[in-house]
Amino acid sequence: MTDQLRLKSFESENREKNFRLVIEYDGTNYHGWQIQPVDASIQDEIQKVLKILTRSDVHLTGSGRTDAGVHAVGQVAHFKADTTILPEKFHDALNKMLPGDIVVRECAYADMDFHARFSAKRKTYCYSILNSKLPVAIHRHYYWHILKKLNIETMQKAADYLIGEKDYKSFEGAGSPKKSTIRTIFDAKIDKSGDIIKLEVTGSGFLKFMVRNITGTLVDVGLGKLTPDDFREILLSGDRGNASPTAPPQGLCLMTVGY
Amino acid sequence: MTDQLRLKSFESENREKNFRLVIEYDGTNYHGWQIQPVDASIQDEIQKVLKILTRSDVHLTGSGRTDAGVHAVGQVAHFKADTTILPEKFHDALNKMLPGDIVVRECAYADMDFHARFSAKRKTYCYSILNSKLPVAIHRHYYWHILKKLNIETMQKAADYLIGEKDYKSFEGAGSPKKSTIRTIFDAKIDKSGDIIKLEVTGSGFLKFMVRNITGTLVDVGLGKLTPDDFREILLSGDRGNASPTAPPQGLCLMTVGY
Repeated sequence: MTDQLRLKSFESENREKNFRLVIEYDGTNYHGWQIQPVDASIQDEIQKVLKILTRSDVHLTGSGRTDAGVHAVGQVAHFKADTTILPEKFHDALNKMLPGDIVVRECAYADMDFHARFSAKRKTYCYSILNSKLPVAIHRHYYWHILKKLNIETMQKAADYLIGEKDYKSFEGAGSPKKSTIRTIFDAKIDKSGDIIKLEVTGSGFLKFMVRNITGTLVDVGLGKLTPDDFREILLSGDRGNASPTAPPQGLCLMTVGY
Repeated sequence: MTDQLRLKSFESENREKNFRLVIEYDGTNYHGWQIQPVDASIQDEIQKVLKILTRSDVHLTGSGRTDAGVHAVGQVAHFKADTTILPEKFHDALNKMLPGDIVVRECAYADMDFHARFSAKRKTYCYSILNSKLPVAIHRHYYWHILKKLNIETMQKAADYLIGEKDYKSFEGAGSPKKSTIRTIFDAKIDKSGDIIKLEVTGSGFLKFMVRNITGTLVDVGLGKLTPDDFREILLSGDRGNASPTAPPQGLCLMTVGY
């Protein structure tokens, strides 16, 4: 059987298949990725449409949660369904039926053992800061506005201490402790273009609020309240109490998930 | 008296002064610039704050209306008030008290005869199109998404016919006819960067819906439904019925007003 024929036969079989989605969303009006008892969530919006399309309860699993107000351009999720609906049909129908602040960018078959969360090897987040005397009205849902000038050289020096396999307990949000707070950060780069400062962090995985807590502390370095060495001490201390306040959600965006 | 002293004496006099504002706003949640009987408007939001600050009824005059959902980065307005409040105090207080989707970018004294509408000599509008297979979730309030590829060369050829002092009746929205439909367009440029196409138009003034009606018709040129010569015929016909549907509001932004 050729690959083409094998695919055709697979498509038409009414058996469980695994679908992989790449999803962009504007998190402004949602209480985060994960289904909440009352508030709207991205996961719930997509599951509701999948239920209509497949006429069955479908569970959508994301690569991880994103908090209320946090955005994504490359969230990855999977769902299993007994269906002959083709991925391109799901793709079109989802984008027609979903609200405008959720867009499915890709939809394809995945191996049955592909798992959006457990198979994820790395994630990249970007945190955007508007460093200017005046805030903006347009695009305001995508930046943290900071009035005082930030020193990106000292911020980068501090961020360099993040690289490696380390215990990031100091940057874990309260509430849902993970068994292990050890993760690997592969890259943490700070770039400035005009008034916009972007922190891009790639890691094996992230603790709750980790990127926002790192950002809040790096901003204090940029403001001269902390030195890069202070930042290193905070990281080594393993004590959340030493780190700075959590940066607001709207500056954060999940860029890619690697498998 | 030095200029410095003259200014000090002017500031402290409790007499009517004229203030000029430059305003940025995200029009998504407003029913346009102008005060409406029921719906929220930009003018109303700012007037409400000015009333609190000056403890008197203040009338704010804009350079012109913008429609519901249309944005501005450089709307200009003026208001007169008997006050010793300094422009920089107005500036700070307005930005502290206004909602996040309205930002005052400048506030300064103006000559008593400065009038935001009657003194305006030219305006620049920008219309942004996202020309891509998929829509976007993030930044979706700032683009008109068009799926089919647009030919920007033919669009520019058509747009060139707009330049000059002409009768733009074909592009006037129904409802509120102006006495004269003659205006001057100084410049109409189309640029593409990645998936984003921008039409920037500078003119002496614009009729109701004029930029959006021009954009709608230029898009039909870009799609190959009309030729640049058809566009010229539509312009010359003076008949709105010949032009294409009005482009949606969210792609439009008032960039600058010149005096």
